[in-house]
Amino acid sequence: MSDGHPPVKVSFFGGLGEIGCNMASVEVDGRILLIDVGLIFPDAEHFGVDLILPDWSALGQRAPDVDAVVITHGHEDHMGALPFFLREFRDVPIYGSRLTLGLIEAKLTEHPDVTATLREVEAGERLETGPFDLEFVGVTHSIPDGLAVAVHTPHGTILHSGDFKLDQTPIDSQPTDIPHLAAIGDEGVALLLADSTNADSPGFVPSERTVGSTMADVFAGAEGRIVCTTFASHIHRVQQAIDAAVESGRKVCFVGRSMVRNMPIARELGHLVYDDADVIEMADVGALDRDQVAIICTGSQGEPFAALSLMAAGRHRQVSLAEGDTVVMASSVIPGNESAIYKSINGLFRQGAKVVHKGIAPVHVSGHAAADELKFFHNVVRPDAFIPVHGEYRHLVAHSAIAVECGVPPEQALVCTDGDTVLLEDGRIRMGEPFQAGRVFVDGLGVGDVGNAVLRHREQLSADGVCVAVVVVDGRARLVSEPEVTQTGIIYEPELSDLLTKAAQAVSSELDRVDHDGDQAVIRRATVQTLARFWRDEVGRRPVIHAQIVEV
Amino acid sequence: MSDGHPPVKVSFFGGLGEIGCNMASVEVDGRILLIDVGLIFPDAEHFGVDLILPDWSALGQRAPDVDAVVITHGHEDHMGALPFFLREFRDVPIYGSRLTLGLIEAKLTEHPDVTATLREVEAGERLETGPFDLEFVGVTHSIPDGLAVAVHTPHGTILHSGDFKLDQTPIDSQPTDIPHLAAIGDEGVALLLADSTNADSPGFVPSERTVGSTMADVFAGAEGRIVCTTFASHIHRVQQAIDAAVESGRKVCFVGRSMVRNMPIARELGHLVYDDADVIEMADVGALDRDQVAIICTGSQGEPFAALSLMAAGRHRQVSLAEGDTVVMASSVIPGNESAIYKSINGLFRQGAKVVHKGIAPVHVSGHAAADELKFFHNVVRPDAFIPVHGEYRHLVAHSAIAVECGVPPEQALVCTDGDTVLLEDGRIRMGEPFQAGRVFVDGLGVGDVGNAVLRHREQLSADGVCVAVVVVDGRARLVSEPEVTQTGIIYEPELSDLLTKAAQAVSSELDRVDHDGDQAVIRRATVQTLARFWRDEVGRRPVIHAQIVEV
Repeated sequence: MSDGHPPVKVSFFGGLGEIGCNMASVEVDGRILLIDVGLIFPDAEHFGVDLILPDWSALGQRAPDVDAVVITHGHEDHMGALPFFLREFRDVPIYGSRLTLGLIEAKLTEHPDVTATLREVEAGERLETGPFDLEFVGVTHSIPDGLAVAVHTPHGTILHSGDFKLDQTPIDSQPTDIPHLAAIGDEGVALLLADSTNADSPGFVPSERTVGSTMADVFAGAEGRIVCTTFASHIHRVQQAIDAAVESGRKVCFVGRSMVRNMPIARELGHLVYDDADVIEMADVGALDRDQVAIICTGSQGEPFAALSLMAAGRHRQVSLAEGDTVVMASSVIPGNESAIYKSINGLFRQGAKVVHKGIAPVHVSGHAAADELKFFHNVVRPDAFIPVHGEYRHLVAHSAIAVECGVPPEQALVCTDGDTVLLEDGRIRMGEPFQAGRVFVDGLGVGDVGNAVLRHREQLSADGVCVAVVVVDGRARLVSEPEVTQTGIIYEPELSDLLTKAAQAVSSELDRVDHDGDQAVIRRATVQTLARFWRDEVGRRPVIHAQIVEV
Repeated sequence: MSDGHPPVKVSFFGGLGEIGCNMASVEVDGRILLIDVGLIFPDAEHFGVDLILPDWSALGQRAPDVDAVVITHGHEDHMGALPFFLREFRDVPIYGSRLTLGLIEAKLTEHPDVTATLREVEAGERLETGPFDLEFVGVTHSIPDGLAVAVHTPHGTILHSGDFKLDQTPIDSQPTDIPHLAAIGDEGVALLLADSTNADSPGFVPSERTVGSTMADVFAGAEGRIVCTTFASHIHRVQQAIDAAVESGRKVCFVGRSMVRNMPIARELGHLVYDDADVIEMADVGALDRDQVAIICTGSQGEPFAALSLMAAGRHRQVSLAEGDTVVMASSVIPGNESAIYKSINGLFRQGAKVVHKGIAPVHVSGHAAADELKFFHNVVRPDAFIPVHGEYRHLVAHSAIAVECGVPPEQALVCTDGDTVLLEDGRIRMGEPFQAGRVFVDGLGVGDVGNAVLRHREQLSADGVCVAVVVVDGRARLVSEPEVTQTGIIYEPELSDLLTKAAQAVSSELDRVDHDGDQAVIRRATVQTLARFWRDEVGRRPVIHAQIVEV
């Protein structure tokens, strides 16, 4: 069946080890399908950067060859980069489930210059676009309406799991469609790409329903106000919080921009059910007794301006906490956010609230299949070859070992990384030519105008500040006056006046000494070196030094 | 017995919620005893700061009143600030156990300008210094030779636990001395101050010996080289790694500055036992087969220049890892270090090593008593009043609840915070006047010359860089030439040339427009405002702006 067809190329732009935003491409007969176009949020090492996108510049001039984008589900790390992508790839249709497209539409309203062609698909559906024969499988995750996608190619079927788990009693009673996966497996899966996030966690993730029963207990036993925080995309978690609130005789109030934005969408699309009578506006919270209110809000990761963080700092304009209130953190801890989250928890305790988090009670379960679930998945799909996706390198290694345990020949279980291309030919995979993958930083209005060199400068500035010297020389390169030396971020001002005078003197006596012959480059270099030495010797610091030579 | 004695004052300089470095004082009849003088290491929000000390300036001119410092054990957060402290309080004797003083001495060799009067004490010992009647109790922790200290005062006995746990089978067979604590409890403890680090963790911490048996299994089953990382102060953990190595037919090599420095001290003082024949130098590692070597090294927290991090990056000069090697991370994850540690683990996997960490196998247990151990402790000591120490606010609240559960009257279980003073009078406590506590930053050679204002400047520099403008005007305040505008850390250089020209033009046309009347302050302000607007409009960033006006 593969006669005359070149090998299918699978390329990984992000999500495999280095670059947290998920994006992959499948190329069949010169046409390109993209699976997910995600972004991630920066951490402390990305000084001042606002968002991180995958670098898709390797697609180069091939925009006309891109037939479609499939978005597996509505999380930012799978669809968040679409507004930036669509500025370059205007007419490419986006395929996704109803909720996924609903969330994409809501996101695009914040980018009015971007338009998109959205094509709704359903779990179980099969369709063709260009040379791509696509089949969608419903999967359970920490957001409803997730999809896996099978790409039937002339060289065999590629199954991409999306993010999934195997909760057998999910809130919407739609577990990951194992019979459908089994049917695809029966026809033969040449290559499986599957979610590795929890591949190094043994066992099974408990059902989402276990969180509901814990919440019901906590809500029922709470005396004061309840504040429950989770991700605004975790519709089923919010549903369980609403149910626990109503059961315990409370009205629900949604707080936080994305919570307020997403819930009506989720309700309209049938993923969230509540009575209007059970939901109140923030303005009405104060009119009710403390034990008649449950606030469901954003801020589970300690984001400084999110609702929960403001409450923890006692700075939320409308909602205050008091002795006897209960805060339920029904959420994960995203690595890197630990300090911010603990800061929130400490602040909440200071406000007098009791904080229930996953370290204390089972108020959170993961959205990703753990190791033993992955074994089920592999044994249902029975792929000939396997590449782990979605995870740090340690997760990919663990998932590859699971695949081998479940029967994939070791040489057909490749651990790839971002920038790798794999060729699928006649049902077997091999490594292709790697390409230049990477991160593109969004900072303010700029996309890609901040790179590693700028970040290194910002790092130096952040560690030791900046010193600015202005040296005015006359036409014969003699100093017209004492150099002007100022600083920011090196040292506390009151310690300064003498130091800056001393620094200026050091520069002028060095310039007296040096034979610069009026060469501004030499004067500048001598000034920079003198000031570098000065700050190192005086305070042991290495500020960035700007020297400006002015000839008058 | 308290006739005529003023109330005893207990003051908390750090360790209670905000300031992670532990330090407390007990004042009896105008004389002062300090318990612990610790430091902590900065995290990402402390741009460029090297060390953080507690602010002891509230002691003011009272150096002559300080009779003694008791150091409970040899961890940095309990004794690390001593070199800085001793520069101000030269002659104050330091009391501690033999190992604690040994580690202090080793630390002081790095500060040759500092001398100390070290007074060795033993568990079980009682001694008087000034008005202080001190009694030392041996406790188990993640470093040997830890002490709790009872201070018998005219208003009752204050017991300070130090850091401790109740491991009943510790490696040195010296469990926390419960009979001694019971005897002190029998005589009456007016006020207990106790370690709260694990107060919100239910249950008991498993014995350190469980780590040893896991290590023995892992070492016995490992085929290649073994690298085991832990804290260089965790002598018992190192002992167990040595034992597992020798049992599995391996030679041990210590790698990393503090590991190499501490092991001979610990051995000389009898806390570590090994045969010289079982330990090799790094230069000899290469001569042995991979399965004959176990390296015990620093770097468990992902510190960028520590031995393990260099190995993970493939950049350690002497030790490389290969397929089949095993890395055992026999260590905790200090909050805030997660990202760095995961980065190490991913790097180790990339080198081909298998990584065993506490998420996978029980290769670490905590050094701090968990909630159920704390209940034992409280019921043995039976204090009349309680103040939780050593922990974040959430831990202090949890520990206070435990004290009340165990019988302390709620109004005598105070949750205090850094900067609080408590008065003990006739066996009862009450809040005293708070004082100015805080953090003192060490940056390079400077102590205290970087504060929050400097950190805010560094934060702004780190997020958006710096722009420098030099405007040269003549005696009539006319621009002599186009302003010079340069930048660092705002934007990638190749994008720049046009932008900087545009920025300079914006400044010069604004200065043409503005009626500055030759006033340099007005010219400067107009320049700064113009550039701030320029960068905001062009790239959406807010750099620090330095404008220098030069009149010629």
